Amino acid sequence: MSDVHAYIDANLDRFRDELFEFLRIPSISARSEHQPDMQRAAEWLAARMRDAGLEASIERTPGHPIVVGEWRGAGPDAPTVLIYGHYDVQPAEPLELWTSPPFEPTIRDGRLYARGSVDDKGQLYLHIKAIEAHMRTAGRLPVNVVVLAEGEEEVGSENLVPFIEKHAARFAADSIVISDTTMFAPGMPTIGASLRGIAYFQIDVTGPAQDLHSGAYGGAVVNPATALARIIASFHDENWRVAIPGFYDDVDPAPDFREQIRALPFDEEAFRKEVGAPALNGEAGQTTLERLWVRPTIEINGLLSGYTGEGSKTVLPSTAMAKVSCRLVPNQDPAKIARLVEEHVRRVAPAGVEIRFQYMHGGQAWRAKLGGKLYEAAARALERAFGRPPIYAGEGGSIPIVTEFERVLGAPVLLMGFGLPGENAHAPDEWMSIENFEKGMHAAAALLAELG
Amino acid sequence: MSDVHAYIDANLDRFRDELFEFLRIPSISARSEHQPDMQRAAEWLAARMRDAGLEASIERTPGHPIVVGEWRGAGPDAPTVLIYGHYDVQPAEPLELWTSPPFEPTIRDGRLYARGSVDDKGQLYLHIKAIEAHMRTAGRLPVNVVVLAEGEEEVGSENLVPFIEKHAARFAADSIVISDTTMFAPGMPTIGASLRGIAYFQIDVTGPAQDLHSGAYGGAVVNPATALARIIASFHDENWRVAIPGFYDDVDPAPDFREQIRALPFDEEAFRKEVGAPALNGEAGQTTLERLWVRPTIEINGLLSGYTGEGSKTVLPSTAMAKVSCRLVPNQDPAKIARLVEEHVRRVAPAGVEIRFQYMHGGQAWRAKLGGKLYEAAARALERAFGRPPIYAGEGGSIPIVTEFERVLGAPVLLMGFGLPGENAHAPDEWMSIENFEKGMHAAAALLAELG
Repeated sequence: MSDVHAYIDANLDRFRDELFEFLRIPSISARSEHQPDMQRAAEWLAARMRDAGLEASIERTPGHPIVVGEWRGAGPDAPTVLIYGHYDVQPAEPLELWTSPPFEPTIRDGRLYARGSVDDKGQLYLHIKAIEAHMRTAGRLPVNVVVLAEGEEEVGSENLVPFIEKHAARFAADSIVISDTTMFAPGMPTIGASLRGIAYFQIDVTGPAQDLHSGAYGGAVVNPATALARIIASFHDENWRVAIPGFYDDVDPAPDFREQIRALPFDEEAFRKEVGAPALNGEAGQTTLERLWVRPTIEINGLLSGYTGEGSKTVLPSTAMAKVSCRLVPNQDPAKIARLVEEHVRRVAPAGVEIRFQYMHGGQAWRAKLGGKLYEAAARALERAFGRPPIYAGEGGSIPIVTEFERVLGAPVLLMGFGLPGENAHAPDEWMSIENFEKGMHAAAALLAELG
Repeated sequence: MSDVHAYIDANLDRFRDELFEFLRIPSISARSEHQPDMQRAAEWLAARMRDAGLEASIERTPGHPIVVGEWRGAGPDAPTVLIYGHYDVQPAEPLELWTSPPFEPTIRDGRLYARGSVDDKGQLYLHIKAIEAHMRTAGRLPVNVVVLAEGEEEVGSENLVPFIEKHAARFAADSIVISDTTMFAPGMPTIGASLRGIAYFQIDVTGPAQDLHSGAYGGAVVNPATALARIIASFHDENWRVAIPGFYDDVDPAPDFREQIRALPFDEEAFRKEVGAPALNGEAGQTTLERLWVRPTIEINGLLSGYTGEGSKTVLPSTAMAKVSCRLVPNQDPAKIARLVEEHVRRVAPAGVEIRFQYMHGGQAWRAKLGGKLYEAAARALERAFGRPPIYAGEGGSIPIVTEFERVLGAPVLLMGFGLPGENAHAPDEWMSIENFEKGMHAAAALLAELG
């Protein structure tokens, strides 16, 4: 194994240069005009999988392709590890808030800045390089390996589940490893103990058939922007508790997990500084980590109505739009939540406007069943790479595919992420720690050995 | 006088072609990139004033220039009429909702479609042509005339008041005539009896220092879009009454005006169809015309936050912006209202966000003192042009300069407008009735004769 780690250390510069190439491809899955970039990213990734010694194929789906890399040389009796990641990225807007352009990777102060650096190209690529390190030094891997990289994680992974369902035999695995999460703090290797689910909606409110003069008509016609604001304001009560009837009905109270959370060294003021808000605030009676890990939310992701340019325009808008998403916790069903939200929106909408409610995508929350061979191997691998045993932390975000993998393939999922707090995933100036990219490769390589 | 009217009828086609030229200049005062178009519109207008027999000058201001046309040939003992209009127009967005391009004037079904057609280029230009008709037929005007055309009406007329204050002697007048309003119904010539005032604000809510991942942070940080929605929702109570403390304190109850309004033939369902909303709705206990003419409002003119493009993005936005304006009625003071709104916004804003409140511009409401030489002359002139005496109607919009003219120049203002309901001022597919453009010229020419 020391050869493998020496190989990684000897090739760090090349690995980083290759990752730069990957990050330069603006593989934004949400934007149809980036379709060619999605194809280019898939082809680039398949070629690098082949360089690493895997057999690679680009599998068509009704949406963006899935890239599969396989090595079955350990034989049918050896365990199989499935490594999942995604090569698509979030849109980069607002572009003017990036210190360096989102698709021109730049290193500053030990951080690699680029859209997709940590979410998830960097964390996917470190596994490819860990595989290469085994193949080039030992000529083989300690276990059978399948790498599955999708291109629709940022838009709801719609085509991945049908794909793995259809190919369940091919992707049968003993362990599933995902690196798409964040460490609790620098230097503290972290295993993900939970993920929140998601349900994403768009609400369009329409009043007059077209924009009106706000003087000539204002007061006699319901303003869709005001109506939308009233709808949104009704989502929470005065204590920031979600006020949508039935919203909390299925929530797992999670007393054990709450106890683990309370034992973690959490610096509230450091967190506030990281987000840069004047104060932290949220559901009354819950700590910050509980608000993030064991409580569901409803958040506004976007608002648009009327005139938003320079200066003033006295328009009474015809329409107002909100993008809205709920984060969910175990036992909440995204489709049921979508129905509750839609019913609530239609109930509170004032007379004089019409509502269009679209449920765009959803995914279940997840909580890890800790212990067993996979988790023990991961603890040893992370300790080898970081010099200390991992902690077990929740994650406020969603990887809906986690519950689906467990359901379809019947194997446990390990969340071994190398992001860091403040990494700006989904925001301008997204970055990944260079140190974590390197230690992540060592941990990924060690994990394969531990599982062999 | 029959010569004057015959001249108008004989030259209608040319007058319309000239107006087309005027409308093709995209003189959008709110947009700095249209600065050259503003200058071009001012020069075009000054040239047409000279063609009509006026002495014309383009007067500099700190903003867009003011075009002045003068004829003093009636002598110092004759009355002087000041005609005010504006050559600037509203922005044309959303462009995709125009049936024909906003700056390519097009006639369909007796309507002239173009941005600025009715607000206010068409209504300003008909006075220039009425002047030309007198000059070309009688070689003189029945009264001294000053035409004052500003380029900042759509952005608050900031520089007009200092300009007329500075030149109060030059602009001294016995009557002030403005054509920038709407007739109550087709074929019903209308004298404006009231205007609402305005106070325009921009509210920026800032939470986290930059956009955050809505999963990783949602629930523990106040979402500025949600905070803004709560602020906006607090502007009204359940009965659509404005809930900002003190908002109605100075409102003139206007019992006489309410009585006149109730006598007008108003078709509620026709109005609803015109606006195209599923239902009319507004302050409880008030009729539609009362909501528009004697009651103040607070309206959202624009909303922007987070991700508003195609598909979904799970962002917790750093900022949320609203453009907000109040329509005011007599005795309400715009600056006081701005203060009340700002205090209210700051009071209801939740902990965890910061508020930036900008008071962008304001203007007083106005109610006509009916009767006297000017109003009697106008009634006769309108009856001559339209074949029936005028009615006296309110106007929901604002022309802040009206109260300022009365204050600075000490002369009564006449609102003699030729727009029509549904004319889409400030909206896509703005239009002016060709018939009203023509009858407006006759009325304007007759008014000069009546005042002479």
